[in-house]
Amino acid sequence: MKSILLSISSTIVFSTVLGTAAWAGNSSVAVAPNGIALPEGYKDWRVISVSHRTDNNTMRAIVGNDKAVEAARKGETNPWPDGSVLGKLVWKAEIDANWAAATVPGKFVHAEFMIKEAKKYEATGGWGFARWLGEDQKPYGKDASFVQECYGCHTPVKGNDYVFTHPAKLP
Amino acid sequence: MKSILLSISSTIVFSTVLGTAAWAGNSSVAVAPNGIALPEGYKDWRVISVSHRTDNNTMRAIVGNDKAVEAARKGETNPWPDGSVLGKLVWKAEIDANWAAATVPGKFVHAEFMIKEAKKYEATGGWGFARWLGEDQKPYGKDASFVQECYGCHTPVKGNDYVFTHPAKLP
Repeated sequence: MKSILLSISSTIVFSTVLGTAAWAGNSSVAVAPNGIALPEGYKDWRVISVSHRTDNNTMRAIVGNDKAVEAARKGETNPWPDGSVLGKLVWKAEIDANWAAATVPGKFVHAEFMIKEAKKYEATGGWGFARWLGEDQKPYGKDASFVQECYGCHTPVKGNDYVFTHPAKLP
Repeated sequence: MKSILLSISSTIVFSTVLGTAAWAGNSSVAVAPNGIALPEGYKDWRVISVSHRTDNNTMRAIVGNDKAVEAARKGETNPWPDGSVLGKLVWKAEIDANWAAATVPGKFVHAEFMIKEAKKYEATGGWGFARWLGEDQKPYGKDASFVQECYGCHTPVKGNDYVFTHPAKLP
């Protein structure tokens, strides 16, 4: 009886560990104040563009989920289709130690996302916004109203479906 | 008998079409003067870093095949393991039309690659180099000696396995 209980107990522990591992990327990351969860697998998404902002001294890779990348390659991005998720990976800009005329990523600043669901996020241009700060991925914003800051900043590009990024050309 | 022949014939035609489609991305692209073929699927590779070079006014996304991305994430890049392929997607830098302090990709300039095979490419630091120019992907270099230019430029970073890129940090 003892060995059976031990076996059941081990199975539960083992399953729990496995369950944790499967979600390890994101289960430990808190949801944003507006309820948006960190998109899974975003570090494996394909690149849509890059940018260098001198106003806040950052370098960026703009990546997208499959839906977004497909839309970008077809040129069907105004509007982006529902289900598209754009991710921006942001680093502090640094001068390359071996090439003085090159600016490259330094410290990781944040990952931020735009999730297209025209109906669900109608109040903010059809996009849900969320951002996670630093390598410990702390959700940005004190409460759900933080999205007004995102939406406000993106309003000047309303004519491009609220997106600054134009997919970079590829052969 | 006629229908069997037709069926066989259809099968051959169908297979040929499928075979062509599978290679469509690169079959029309000429190999580099040193015999290196354009790596298949490179537009779907994951991002390892980004850069902005002000000396030649370009923006870059540095991507890698699975072997390279795995190595980058494990921090096992000095040396990079055999089979690693690094790709650099290069665009002319432009000021963003809607954000004056942002530099973004304009015209596509070229895609260039470093292929790690320590033995095969021993004469050039263990790396095979190749580059394809523009959206029509014309191989760079008049003859195989073009690699001396690549190798020469990368020699200052011999201590980093001849690679300028340091993988960008991610959470």
